[in-house]
Amino acid sequence: MCGIFGIIGHPEASNLAYLGLHALQHRGQESAGIVSSNGDALRFHREMGLVADIFTAPTLEKLVGSAAIGHVRYSTAGGSQLKNAQPLCVEYADGQMSVAHNGNLVNAQELRQQLVAEGAIFQSDADTEIIIHLIARSRQPTFEKKVTEALSKVKGAFSLLFLTHNQLVAVRDPYGFRPLVLGRLRNSYVLASETTALDLIEAEFIREIEAGEMVVIDEQGLRTSQPFAPTRLGRCIFEQVYFAKPDSVLFGMSVYEARKELGRQLAREQPAAGADLVIAVPDSGVPAAIGFSQVSGIPYDVGLIRSHYVGRTFIEPQQSIRHFGVKLKLSAVRQVLKGKRVVVVDDSIVRGTTSRKIVKMLKAAGALEVHLRISSPPTAWPCYYGIDTPSRQELIASSHTTEEIARYVTADSLGYLSQEGLGAAVGDRERNTFCTACFSGKYLTGDLTAQAASPQHTNPGITLLSTPEELPGKQLLA
Amino acid sequence: MCGIFGIIGHPEASNLAYLGLHALQHRGQESAGIVSSNGDALRFHREMGLVADIFTAPTLEKLVGSAAIGHVRYSTAGGSQLKNAQPLCVEYADGQMSVAHNGNLVNAQELRQQLVAEGAIFQSDADTEIIIHLIARSRQPTFEKKVTEALSKVKGAFSLLFLTHNQLVAVRDPYGFRPLVLGRLRNSYVLASETTALDLIEAEFIREIEAGEMVVIDEQGLRTSQPFAPTRLGRCIFEQVYFAKPDSVLFGMSVYEARKELGRQLAREQPAAGADLVIAVPDSGVPAAIGFSQVSGIPYDVGLIRSHYVGRTFIEPQQSIRHFGVKLKLSAVRQVLKGKRVVVVDDSIVRGTTSRKIVKMLKAAGALEVHLRISSPPTAWPCYYGIDTPSRQELIASSHTTEEIARYVTADSLGYLSQEGLGAAVGDRERNTFCTACFSGKYLTGDLTAQAASPQHTNPGITLLSTPEELPGKQLLA
Amino acid sequence: MCGIFGIIGHPEASNLAYLGLHALQHRGQESAGIVSSNGDALRFHREMGLVADIFTAPTLEKLVGSAAIGHVRYSTAGGSQLKNAQPLCVEYADGQMSVAHNGNLVNAQELRQQLVAEGAIFQSDADTEIIIHLIARSRQPTFEKKVTEALSKVKGAFSLLFLTHNQLVAVRDPYGFRPLVLGRLRNSYVLASETTALDLIEAEFIREIEAGEMVVIDEQGLRTSQPFAPTRLGRCIFEQVYFAKPDSVLFGMSVYEARKELGRQLAREQPAAGADLVIAVPDSGVPAAIGFSQVSGIPYDVGLIRSHYVGRTFIEPQQSIRHFGVKLKLSAVRQVLKGKRVVVVDDSIVRGTTSRKIVKMLKAAGALEVHLRISSPPTAWPCYYGIDTPSRQELIASSHTTEEIARYVTADSLGYLSQEGLGAAVGDRERNTFCTACFSGKYLTGDLTAQAASPQHTNPGITLLSTPEELPGKQLLA
Amino acid sequence: MCGIFGIIGHPEASNLAYLGLHALQHRGQESAGIVSSNGDALRFHREMGLVADIFTAPTLEKLVGSAAIGHVRYSTAGGSQLKNAQPLCVEYADGQMSVAHNGNLVNAQELRQQLVAEGAIFQSDADTEIIIHLIARSRQPTFEKKVTEALSKVKGAFSLLFLTHNQLVAVRDPYGFRPLVLGRLRNSYVLASETTALDLIEAEFIREIEAGEMVVIDEQGLRTSQPFAPTRLGRCIFEQVYFAKPDSVLFGMSVYEARKELGRQLAREQPAAGADLVIAVPDSGVPAAIGFSQVSGIPYDVGLIRSHYVGRTFIEPQQSIRHFGVKLKLSAVRQVLKGKRVVVVDDSIVRGTTSRKIVKMLKAAGALEVHLRISSPPTAWPCYYGIDTPSRQELIASSHTTEEIARYVTADSLGYLSQEGLGAAVGDRERNTFCTACFSGKYLTGDLTAQAASPQHTNPGITLLSTPEELPGKQLLA
Repeated sequence: MCGIFGIIGHPEASNLAYLGLHALQHRGQESAGIVSSNGDALRFHREMGLVADIFTAPTLEKLVGSAAIGHVRYSTAGGSQLKNAQPLCVEYADGQMSVAHNGNLVNAQELRQQLVAEGAIFQSDADTEIIIHLIARSRQPTFEKKVTEALSKVKGAFSLLFLTHNQLVAVRDPYGFRPLVLGRLRNSYVLASETTALDLIEAEFIREIEAGEMVVIDEQGLRTSQPFAPTRLGRCIFEQVYFAKPDSVLFGMSVYEARKELGRQLAREQPAAGADLVIAVPDSGVPAAIGFSQVSGIPYDVGLIRSHYVGRTFIEPQQSIRHFGVKLKLSAVRQVLKGKRVVVVDDSIVRGTTSRKIVKMLKAAGALEVHLRISSPPTAWPCYYGIDTPSRQELIASSHTTEEIARYVTADSLGYLSQEGLGAAVGDRERNTFCTACFSGKYLTGDLTAQAASPQHTNPGITLLSTPEELPGKQLLA
Repeated sequence: MCGIFGIIGHPEASNLAYLGLHALQHRGQESAGIVSSNGDALRFHREMGLVADIFTAPTLEKLVGSAAIGHVRYSTAGGSQLKNAQPLCVEYADGQMSVAHNGNLVNAQELRQQLVAEGAIFQSDADTEIIIHLIARSRQPTFEKKVTEALSKVKGAFSLLFLTHNQLVAVRDPYGFRPLVLGRLRNSYVLASETTALDLIEAEFIREIEAGEMVVIDEQGLRTSQPFAPTRLGRCIFEQVYFAKPDSVLFGMSVYEARKELGRQLAREQPAAGADLVIAVPDSGVPAAIGFSQVSGIPYDVGLIRSHYVGRTFIEPQQSIRHFGVKLKLSAVRQVLKGKRVVVVDDSIVRGTTSRKIVKMLKAAGALEVHLRISSPPTAWPCYYGIDTPSRQELIASSHTTEEIARYVTADSLGYLSQEGLGAAVGDRERNTFCTACFSGKYLTGDLTAQAASPQHTNPGITLLSTPEELPGKQLLA
Repeated sequence: MCGIFGIIGHPEASNLAYLGLHALQHRGQESAGIVSSNGDALRFHREMGLVADIFTAPTLEKLVGSAAIGHVRYSTAGGSQLKNAQPLCVEYADGQMSVAHNGNLVNAQELRQQLVAEGAIFQSDADTEIIIHLIARSRQPTFEKKVTEALSKVKGAFSLLFLTHNQLVAVRDPYGFRPLVLGRLRNSYVLASETTALDLIEAEFIREIEAGEMVVIDEQGLRTSQPFAPTRLGRCIFEQVYFAKPDSVLFGMSVYEARKELGRQLAREQPAAGADLVIAVPDSGVPAAIGFSQVSGIPYDVGLIRSHYVGRTFIEPQQSIRHFGVKLKLSAVRQVLKGKRVVVVDDSIVRGTTSRKIVKMLKAAGALEVHLRISSPPTAWPCYYGIDTPSRQELIASSHTTEEIARYVTADSLGYLSQEGLGAAVGDRERNTFCTACFSGKYLTGDLTAQAASPQHTNPGITLLSTPEELPGKQLLA
Repeated sequence: MCGIFGIIGHPEASNLAYLGLHALQHRGQESAGIVSSNGDALRFHREMGLVADIFTAPTLEKLVGSAAIGHVRYSTAGGSQLKNAQPLCVEYADGQMSVAHNGNLVNAQELRQQLVAEGAIFQSDADTEIIIHLIARSRQPTFEKKVTEALSKVKGAFSLLFLTHNQLVAVRDPYGFRPLVLGRLRNSYVLASETTALDLIEAEFIREIEAGEMVVIDEQGLRTSQPFAPTRLGRCIFEQVYFAKPDSVLFGMSVYEARKELGRQLAREQPAAGADLVIAVPDSGVPAAIGFSQVSGIPYDVGLIRSHYVGRTFIEPQQSIRHFGVKLKLSAVRQVLKGKRVVVVDDSIVRGTTSRKIVKMLKAAGALEVHLRISSPPTAWPCYYGIDTPSRQELIASSHTTEEIARYVTADSLGYLSQEGLGAAVGDRERNTFCTACFSGKYLTGDLTAQAASPQHTNPGITLLSTPEELPGKQLLA
């Protein structure tokens, strides 16, 4: 997953991009980058790591100019592999361009094959590089038209920010999978994945960029168009359930309030009569747990404490010390839990291993009963639109019933929110404005269920990887 | 502030010390260190930084042996200055010794002057180095007796762990200012500042080390003594209010439950009739806010979100971007707050500047009224026993009434918990087993109020500083 | 300037590339990289810095496979700017390819413009990227034929090593500007810029790759061809004068012996009758100084000591401490120089500033007279074939007579080797097998003297720069 | 081995110390440090590594004040162990003091035992820490007298610089083992191990600090005394043979000229009739090789090239690639050596392994015969006065005849300079002003030959080590 930020018309563009990326850090912790333009030329800096570690005062000072775009990128699950950071910056026929991309293309593989057949060379495995090649090859007269032509060939999820020496262009795919919002800070325009970035820099929220909309900002001001064929909406429901920051307003809704409503609906569908208290798996489960408590009348309390010092580089414990993963992050509050029948609310179950550890930790801390309640339906299908889910084989709900999962995680009961309840809670009872593929298997860009079932690919976009350290070939490497 | 951990009798002593220090990381983020003994010799590693960043697998592998002690140290407020890490390790007449210290001595300056007059040389500004000199000069026949003689000369707060080649010694000062607990992991003994460290490594909690107790563990097993003159208890109330981790059991009480009770008592003393919701300043204010909600009946909700990516090295924003300190850490949830009369619960007010920013942030997010409730009495006196408080001059409550403070922080109302209420909430209605000097000015080791009022020293222990980079002299440096 | 190394058919290919690059480190200190192939896929690692600092055992272990190519790159003079490291690695229609390039193209700018007009995108400023695009666009059926077609379009200096998953291809331009030699280590073939790299790994020297030759090595063995139109030779005379390592055999001659012969010839042309001793500017002037001593009969001695600790990152000295550049590198031996008439031999004069400092240092150390002798003709023209010379404006000999230069450097006399003497010394009396453009202005690839005279470009290959940190545009940046 | 530098009375004291230490870098590459005083207080910075890497502009800016001392320390042979950097800085009864020490004490162990018996604690294994303790315990009224009293108790080699807030004190032991010179830079006094440091900063050389002399410099100016009992001189002959930088003037003699004279004497004692050329093992063998050539009439040439990029962290080559140690540093010039009878001059033979590799390399490059000539007598005894020699067991000359050594190193002949010749060459025919213990076993501070013969200690000064990472005990560690 990724977060993007752009600003044009502000003398401290790169400083603001830095702050904006910090606010979007939850959308990607693997790498970050900023490109700036001073009207003549682009400058950039990108590195692996967190925003606060990557950028120093001297680095930001070099990123001169009144326009900038930035990008944060997610660390993939098993990931000791490095992935290329964004924004990408290239030289092409009309000068320089850079791009920051949130989302994932589903026809990347075939486009890439066409391009290389025509002589294109690729230096990364990012599907974003495909978009750049398509723009560079377009014969259209203007940058906007080149972008339009290029994007009309790609399929999938894209919220994009382009920066050239004199233009900032923002585009959102016709389904509107990934969010993108427009704001204003005095005389400058600001674009960001989420409103929380606007709030941090005290920019005013104007509106969402609409699905399928292209916005161009330059010295003439802002102009908008809808250059793509219209289609139904497919806004990512998982952004509401888990991914976005709770203080953001997403797809017109408060994330925090939406999650609380998920918890309320969950309490209606999956009550836990006789339980003594409701706790959350912090921090993401907190709003739904509070909502659950409100509807059920079961008191909310804090049964798990989240460490502020969760290091991603924690050393693997030795032989005699195992299964510390969750314990390094969460501690149980024994006196709250002891002798109690506890409802624990989490946002989702992926492989089930973490839930199992949490349930065991709660029981070890004295909980008499643990009733696990999940504020979304079973996650049974991989996402091909930008969320880093594991393969279908690894998703426990793809091959196990709720009862089997309950037994595996050792919970006394397990209740998921229904798909209908999910739709109702986010105000889309028909579920026709959201993409719910991870719960339903209904992939809006065409049937991908066969691919999802294949053990080889979790992500249809790219099969040829190239990273700074490794360029694996067509066959698996020894 | 600091955290200490020790273990003896376990083949993976330094690995466990590493995990234990991670669990105590909230007690000190400036530096960390571990010393191990393999029965013959001590080895150590210490650095500036977080536990997870300092120790690598190769480093831990070098710390061989079945006994280890470790230390984490707090970063002082303005602190670009480096302070010496612990444990200290030295060579003396009987071989090698190392020590990890939590607390602060109040007669350090005079002891240091005596020692240097006798020819001692000092390489750090840590009062802990005084203890080492006193031990090295003792003519007593055994290490235990040397330690006893040395500690009978010092005044103040000390929870100490000593490691020699064949002994682990734990001592707590007669007042019991700082916590220290004893646990067992199979055949090994474990000592830690807080029970949360025992929980992480799945060690069994045996009991607290008593105030004034010395415990010696070696091949003969564990033996205990009370070598100091008895005195009244002075357990640090601020550990309960703010410092300890909520899942710990401290001074026989659950920290989480104690804080919830502080919130309940606060609701009785300082109600906020007519308020729409209770929120916490996360994370430390959460238990008291829940307690306040329980007694007042005002619903608890989440109005402030804490960032997981608060970097201590965040770049100072430029001219036009100011006062980001709090905003980088906390975000307001607009939809929760909008149009509401909000009770916000925090654990304490130090200078008032942070509270002021929080109140303004809440109002900017739409709160109609903000009623600030503090789950402890006004912090009016500096701590000389180990908590890093600023000087009395900087403590807003030392020179301002509650009304003045309310006006400064722009709250619609402000209520502190009373000292009586505080005592009642922690089960010490007479307040004669806790040190409450930061609220009452009653310093148990003798009157320090004059010193506290002096603008020059916040900490009477040491005036001569020596750090890796700076050895300031008797006069202020240009 | 750069150095390249390749090996195929050895189980420790990347380890040997590492050693080979270390031996070629004098050809480039800015960055280094290695690409390996295990038959299926390429892996690479490249970084800024010295070979010994960049590669660690774990890094080399990841570079699996029995074939590898490597590259070291020169740090440009004023250079705080980062330049892209090589080898380049890309994905194209036929899979993966990588390339290491020593030399410089003179028609890079027009080729680049054509390519971008056709939709190519560039991510670096290296002219090498042009070669890759030309290969990727070629419709020829095999890699060899694609490379041939691509290189038939470029003009200038290139010694190239290509590595694909199953082939190592070595090519030298028809003029043979830059060296490239072939060796054998047991069953593996080795290619390197200089024989010193063969010597280090104890590989046997077979022969030079001929000017205009292409060698392809794969499972079928080695095959050779001469795919380009033949032309006269233009081997770089400056490699013999200064650049190559003295223990190498270059263009069929011992570098050390060639330089000694330059000194002998210099003594014949520019004697220094009455001088007391001959010293060298170490280390590059040593062989010529010895040759000068042999012919002139003036004793050779050591008057300047070279520091082993010349740091490229030495802090700029403050106000009162200036002009340390040369003194940090060289120290004068007072007792050798005192009261003596000294001949000091250097290989060339570029701007004159260093020579001036050296002459002054010698006089300050007591030399009565300093007679500067240069073992090459005046350097009056910039190199466009790979040597990093400053612009013509900065070359003191482009606008000053020998007498003027002597006066500037404060030498009692100054003598350059003649162009005829240079030719004679390297066995090419007609000077028709060497490129001597830096001395003569005779550019073999067409008249570049106008360009050389222009104040704007020192290097006609590229005007659009793009480095990791900076993408300057068509106009100068503010 | 170590180098020391001091300056007082200059506004850029720490900048000049930085340059001075760079000039003395050959005396120690393991660590470096600088202490400055601004009249009130000391500040310091020290780290592992080279001077140019350790100190940055911001670091030097913090070292304010017009007085400074600095230290560079040698990396011991096998040394992955860290040793404590100097200058040491401590707080004692009279304030702050710091010290930089070149040399080694021979009664360190017994002094240390006495001190720890009296309650002293040690934090390093440096014998220098003993001196500090002795000063701190002195009851003398002034710093000078304290230093005098302290140093009257120690035996061995010491050239010392002390810096307090207002005084710079320089002392050299009565034997004068290690050099120390005094210079002037405008109104400031400068002290340094060698004159090369004065030359770099353009300070004027005044004179050597005499053996047994103490110089005190403060606001009253410079005063000198001879506080110790006089004894015979014992200036280190190995400084002349190998250690000092050739451009220095040492003990009243030019190092370069002395080494050339060693070569001349060697040619007289150990001619190599019929040889074709004389080469040196660069760089240290060069002056003697030139002297040898002058006397013998055999032409001097360059047969071995020294790499400028010898990394101390070079990765251990793998299985099939061995014995690269010398080849990474030296390359043979085949065309110079081929078919020649070669005299190769080196300064000394320690273990013999390097000489063996060099002889083999020369023969592999085509030398017909290799005649090894050593410009000093056989090194048969370890140094206890500051040079890092291996134990007597490892010194090949301690247990092998010259013939045996010649056979081991595979030389056609081997000739050492005689002890008489050595004395004559350095102007001390009686050898009663130099320490020649490493050649003669005559230890001036008392008989240490028994110790030298013991396999356990190479250095009698210290047996209890304590380094940042390791505090080994009385028994060997598992």
